[in-house]
Amino acid sequence: MSYSYVSHLHCPKCQKKYSKEEKLQLCSCGAPLLVDYDLKTLSQEVERKDVIGRNPDLWRYHELLPVEDPDNVVTLGEGMTPLLSMEKAGRKMGIPKLFMKDEGVIPTGTFKARGAAVGVSKAKELGIENLVMPTNGNAGAAWSLYAARGGIKASIVMPVDAPEITRKEVAVSGANLNLVNGLISDAGKIVGRAVQKYDFFDVSTLKEPYRIEGKKTMGLEIAEQFNWKAPDVILYPAGGGVGIIGIYKAFLELQELGWIGEKLPRLVAVQAEGCAPIVQAWKENKKESEFWENSKTIAFGINVPKALGDFLVLEALYSTKGCAIAIDDASLLKEQEQLAALEGCFICPEGASTFVAARRLRESGWIKEDETVVALNTGTGLKYPNTVQVEVPTLEPEEELQWVSDGVKV
Amino acid sequence: MSYSYVSHLHCPKCQKKYSKEEKLQLCSCGAPLLVDYDLKTLSQEVERKDVIGRNPDLWRYHELLPVEDPDNVVTLGEGMTPLLSMEKAGRKMGIPKLFMKDEGVIPTGTFKARGAAVGVSKAKELGIENLVMPTNGNAGAAWSLYAARGGIKASIVMPVDAPEITRKEVAVSGANLNLVNGLISDAGKIVGRAVQKYDFFDVSTLKEPYRIEGKKTMGLEIAEQFNWKAPDVILYPAGGGVGIIGIYKAFLELQELGWIGEKLPRLVAVQAEGCAPIVQAWKENKKESEFWENSKTIAFGINVPKALGDFLVLEALYSTKGCAIAIDDASLLKEQEQLAALEGCFICPEGASTFVAARRLRESGWIKEDETVVALNTGTGLKYPNTVQVEVPTLEPEEELQWVSDGVKV
Repeated sequence: MSYSYVSHLHCPKCQKKYSKEEKLQLCSCGAPLLVDYDLKTLSQEVERKDVIGRNPDLWRYHELLPVEDPDNVVTLGEGMTPLLSMEKAGRKMGIPKLFMKDEGVIPTGTFKARGAAVGVSKAKELGIENLVMPTNGNAGAAWSLYAARGGIKASIVMPVDAPEITRKEVAVSGANLNLVNGLISDAGKIVGRAVQKYDFFDVSTLKEPYRIEGKKTMGLEIAEQFNWKAPDVILYPAGGGVGIIGIYKAFLELQELGWIGEKLPRLVAVQAEGCAPIVQAWKENKKESEFWENSKTIAFGINVPKALGDFLVLEALYSTKGCAIAIDDASLLKEQEQLAALEGCFICPEGASTFVAARRLRESGWIKEDETVVALNTGTGLKYPNTVQVEVPTLEPEEELQWVSDGVKV
Repeated sequence: MSYSYVSHLHCPKCQKKYSKEEKLQLCSCGAPLLVDYDLKTLSQEVERKDVIGRNPDLWRYHELLPVEDPDNVVTLGEGMTPLLSMEKAGRKMGIPKLFMKDEGVIPTGTFKARGAAVGVSKAKELGIENLVMPTNGNAGAAWSLYAARGGIKASIVMPVDAPEITRKEVAVSGANLNLVNGLISDAGKIVGRAVQKYDFFDVSTLKEPYRIEGKKTMGLEIAEQFNWKAPDVILYPAGGGVGIIGIYKAFLELQELGWIGEKLPRLVAVQAEGCAPIVQAWKENKKESEFWENSKTIAFGINVPKALGDFLVLEALYSTKGCAIAIDDASLLKEQEQLAALEGCFICPEGASTFVAARRLRESGWIKEDETVVALNTGTGLKYPNTVQVEVPTLEPEEELQWVSDGVKV
């Protein structure tokens, strides 16, 4: 019985193999690496029921994670986020079995915590002392806080326009924070030069292989929460696409272990109309996406013009008979507000896009009425205060309670 | 086997009994009511091991909660928050077995979610259609979102100075939000008049009896997370004190059920130097506190000059051989920053106060080196962006990474 059954890594593009002892970044061919496990031995030594009764965090799946010594686990208690019934919203859109996997209820408030927890833990195991990354905000916040907990020094470069709260999170962690008067691509170039100069470990999206393993646990949890059965559809807001790659990997591994049956969920990549390279590629049945010029959307987290792992995202869509769909900003903002009023869930704009997508796919008949559908919310609305406008009366103490409706006095 | 073993309610001051079917506010004598369970039958029909394998939320303890029909449960997946080892911080203060119960990892980002989940669920069960409350922010945010999910109309009155993010949460929930140019006591007066005028259900702190039951689950979880053993000390930031009353009630009930042994945790009420009525009363060995004039502290959540349940808080301190201690604002802000850099936890100022208290009580010898100590963090730092000041360089894209230390360029 091992804590982890990790065996090696491989390149999904050129199939080259790598040792799990190495400090790995990209494959020599330039593609991101994937982590492999000895699933045969695992299936003989561990049963899915062994997981029951373990702590409600992602480390309950430690056999399927890359950290080999439990002493290297850096955790803030992340994972086993709620799977909520969204019956009222679902009934309105003709999907009574609609659920939300709520990644807002997690340390640092977004799903980025999963990748950071596993990535930082593995970096600690490999003896890494300095890491560096460009970020649009939430990933940098998560990685710098987990790095602080793991005793690793983080350097973070973030656009001046990134959400202010994430700047505060990075600063309070004691990380080396630099802002850049530009885009995340500009931050990436500064990071690239710093990596050369200081020999830092580059933890940019998919440039190290372990972040995917953390994100994979969303798939493992969804399977366990449905009592080891795949739902029919999972909708995911795709930027870099690490989550969808991870969820697909999770279901394949569970299948190989025999912990779930033959059925896979149909995976849906949801993007913004102002930045939809995956949607475009999927429509044209292509294996890779093309750079999206002048990308723009209020859903900051899915503003990624060209993802390094686009070919893996597209593979996940094709092999699960999934699809890709683009949503306009006005619709997702409206959805965010409606969901809060109807279901009490204050979610992020990226998460809201998956609900608009569910409605549209139901309307088109792609989703059937009796199907079990999971919309993935990637973060709490608390990190996006600017998406809510408030116009309410301010009373003097001697005045009487007034009535407002939809933010307007009546 | 019942879903709930609730039997009746009683007044802890005059001992008058009430039926569980009534829509109850305060006792006719003016004191808050407590909920009673048929613990004898419960202990015969349910074992603590039955809880294992249930969903990781506070409803895993449904037998000890007042909601009788599971269909009335209004949940966002709240509870079973992380119990984190704070070994690095603990070693520095000579308490190697220091833990943090992190109530930041919960829907709406604060422990107020627990009281709201149980309070709104019970309100739904009792057929309540309109609730109203004054709030300093976080409670109003939680109650309005849970009310939205439960299909109950909420009216919320909040000082204009309450944290802005909580205003957004209330607004997005579709609640009837009014601001008041004054303090929470002014909001309370407006609510009082509205209750008279509209026959609304008043869910002000302790004016309805079920919020305590939600908060109680913090104690149940701490016991389960320590494998049904009480820690030596629990430190709690006390404003209205509902949490400390609830935690004490939890341990008494678990004791009566035989799920834990004889030992109770010593409960510590932590307050701010600028508002310390409980500390003052405890020092003078009094049974009730006196109104604290001109109260002032950056830790908004514990700025409560006179709590309705002060006598219950003091009873909890006296009977567990606990204590009360006041912390200055500068110290708690410094602690908040240090904890983020050392442990990767971005917590709220109220939560930070409990760590300062732990250090001081260790220094004075009140806490012993080998004791197991739990500091309770009541909310995520994400809701308090103004507690972090950021001064970092802004680069142009062609510039090189710079080094900052403690927010200062080096």
